[in-house]
Amino acid sequence: MTVILASGLFPTTLHALQYLREADFIACCDGAANACVAAGFHPDVIVGDGDSIAPEVAATFADRIVRISEQETNDLSKTFHHCLKLGRRDEYVILGATGRREDHALANLALLMDYAEEHREVIMVSDFGTFYPCRDTKRLTVGVGQEISIWNFGASYFSAEGLQYPLYDFTKLWQGTLNVATRPDIAVHAKGTFLLYVAQPD
Amino acid sequence: MTVILASGLFPTTLHALQYLREADFIACCDGAANACVAAGFHPDVIVGDGDSIAPEVAATFADRIVRISEQETNDLSKTFHHCLKLGRRDEYVILGATGRREDHALANLALLMDYAEEHREVIMVSDFGTFYPCRDTKRLTVGVGQEISIWNFGASYFSAEGLQYPLYDFTKLWQGTLNVATRPDIAVHAKGTFLLYVAQPD
Repeated sequence: MTVILASGLFPTTLHALQYLREADFIACCDGAANACVAAGFHPDVIVGDGDSIAPEVAATFADRIVRISEQETNDLSKTFHHCLKLGRRDEYVILGATGRREDHALANLALLMDYAEEHREVIMVSDFGTFYPCRDTKRLTVGVGQEISIWNFGASYFSAEGLQYPLYDFTKLWQGTLNVATRPDIAVHAKGTFLLYVAQPD
Repeated sequence: MTVILASGLFPTTLHALQYLREADFIACCDGAANACVAAGFHPDVIVGDGDSIAPEVAATFADRIVRISEQETNDLSKTFHHCLKLGRRDEYVILGATGRREDHALANLALLMDYAEEHREVIMVSDFGTFYPCRDTKRLTVGVGQEISIWNFGASYFSAEGLQYPLYDFTKLWQGTLNVATRPDIAVHAKGTFLLYVAQPD
């Protein structure tokens, strides 16, 4: 499993930190390396324009800093594409992508939909939940009562199994939020792409 | 000015807290009253299903709790509509709408676009920036160098004055993010509705 750590809120829950503990490869977006090292994890690569890396982190991991200064994409995209370029084809888990600047978070969520077209297995995990970019049918094992949200990125013909409220072809970003799993095996069916979120129980 | 406090991240910056200090009326979404009271502010009304209000807060402010248990809208919408029903027509500032559960934050941002159709002056403020729902032309005074993001909610014919990167008719949620103000008086022109964000300087 490849973990990509972005510069939003560093994970603090056991569930989210578990991905860092079990990672085979940790790629940090620029200054995210600081929090990564402070938490006791060693980045395998640090990608970005290099202007946010703390001097002591830059010195310790100088051999694995990849400086990409172009301004067309953000640090998360630079890091994701660098991992693909390294040939990594395992499951990608993106951490730290939300939780501070809302514009970064929204951009990262939209980019996740793009990444899913380039790599089959990529999810985004925060202290508060997990985002799964989906196409057509998505089946998941969850907890009964877990809150599930769905955002439509151009899909139609929505239907679901194991969700409390019926789905329809949502046109607004709030319409598919706060559904509830009524059984552990849920499925969402649609034609096209959508984003599914499983909220972490409190 | 009417402040509506939702149950996301309670504001901590001087800039965001200033709205609570200067509020003429503070409306709390259910459990948000707990953080409000803990920070030394007195809610004028507490709206929601009442299940998240701490017992001591519920006891102290029992005379101003408005219980609305219907499940069709969220606590923010219940509170917003209650303020309108009270006849408040001043500027509305929504705080605490982002910063924890991402599904709540996304729903609240989408709902902000709806609220702007019902009430002319409504913005959303967090520790990290300010959201302005816009229609057609939006003029703002900002700091030179401040980061500006724009999300398109169905508008077209985008153009701008005082922004570093040219605008176009964005179709994806990341495309209008991370622009930069090149002068203090900026203007965004479009036909239709969009959401503008001014990031708070670090």
